Amino acid sequence: MKQKAFQDYYPDELSYCYGCGRLNDQGLKLKSYWDGEETVAIFTPREYHIAIPGYVYGGLIASIIDCHGTGTAAAALHRAEGREMGTEPPVRFVTASLHVEYMRPAPLGVELEVRGVVKEIKGRKVVVSARVSAGGEICARGEVVAVRMPEHMMPKGRTA
Amino acid sequence: MKQKAFQDYYPDELSYCYGCGRLNDQGLKLKSYWDGEETVAIFTPREYHIAIPGYVYGGLIASIIDCHGTGTAAAALHRAEGREMGTEPPVRFVTASLHVEYMRPAPLGVELEVRGVVKEIKGRKVVVSARVSAGGEICARGEVVAVRMPEHMMPKGRTA
Repeated sequence: MKQKAFQDYYPDELSYCYGCGRLNDQGLKLKSYWDGEETVAIFTPREYHIAIPGYVYGGLIASIIDCHGTGTAAAALHRAEGREMGTEPPVRFVTASLHVEYMRPAPLGVELEVRGVVKEIKGRKVVVSARVSAGGEICARGEVVAVRMPEHMMPKGRTA
Repeated sequence: MKQKAFQDYYPDELSYCYGCGRLNDQGLKLKSYWDGEETVAIFTPREYHIAIPGYVYGGLIASIIDCHGTGTAAAALHRAEGREMGTEPPVRFVTASLHVEYMRPAPLGVELEVRGVVKEIKGRKVVVSARVSAGGEICARGEVVAVRMPEHMMPKGRTA
């Protein structure tokens, strides 16, 4: 059976994110998975996701780092707590800060691979470093500081 | 006559950016202007640009900071050189790094205002700080380090 993505475990009410919500039909639907101690997501930009013709838009790269970072944070917290994703209570992270260094232009027409490494888990905060590569070459490096979603933003009856 | 946006001066070949290109019909078409010593752009997120229902997607906020930053860089360089935008040679910046701090969730359904301040112009590099507000409240702060586009990425016959 195909492994479920981190984002596939988000409760329905929290699955409308433009970057990674499985229920946002206009969105990018990024899917992130464990690969040993790292996490990985693959995304193929659409032909209009360009900065200049032939090269991927930097804001898209920032977006996939963002969603891969918060997804990795949720998965890492489950792993740290020794429980499976999908068990109660659901955990959802939001982004406190996002940093991206663009190393070289990412060519359009190939898959982007984003890989995440958990640098820190402390209290409500998880720090994830990420790197994005295209055709085996690293195009961008980033860092996401993710924090558990505040209770007032959780759908009714849920806790973060 | 309505003021032209910075992005309206980009040469056609460089006007396909997903975030701000006037010729990218799938894109966001961000438009940035001078407002005294600051620069400003207004963008109304679409109903699907959400992180969770009711709140704007962080990757979109990163994207508008990115494009407003590179647009501000181009405008600032023209101003520093004492020449009008649209004069030769055209100038186009790309993003070397992008940093965003998310202060509070941005509600969906109101205009976002992004304001830029030029912090540094040095050689091929311009540093722009930005803040994004919704309904008068600051939701995010960011910084863009923009560099002039390398010659090999410029369309044939153009110089950066």
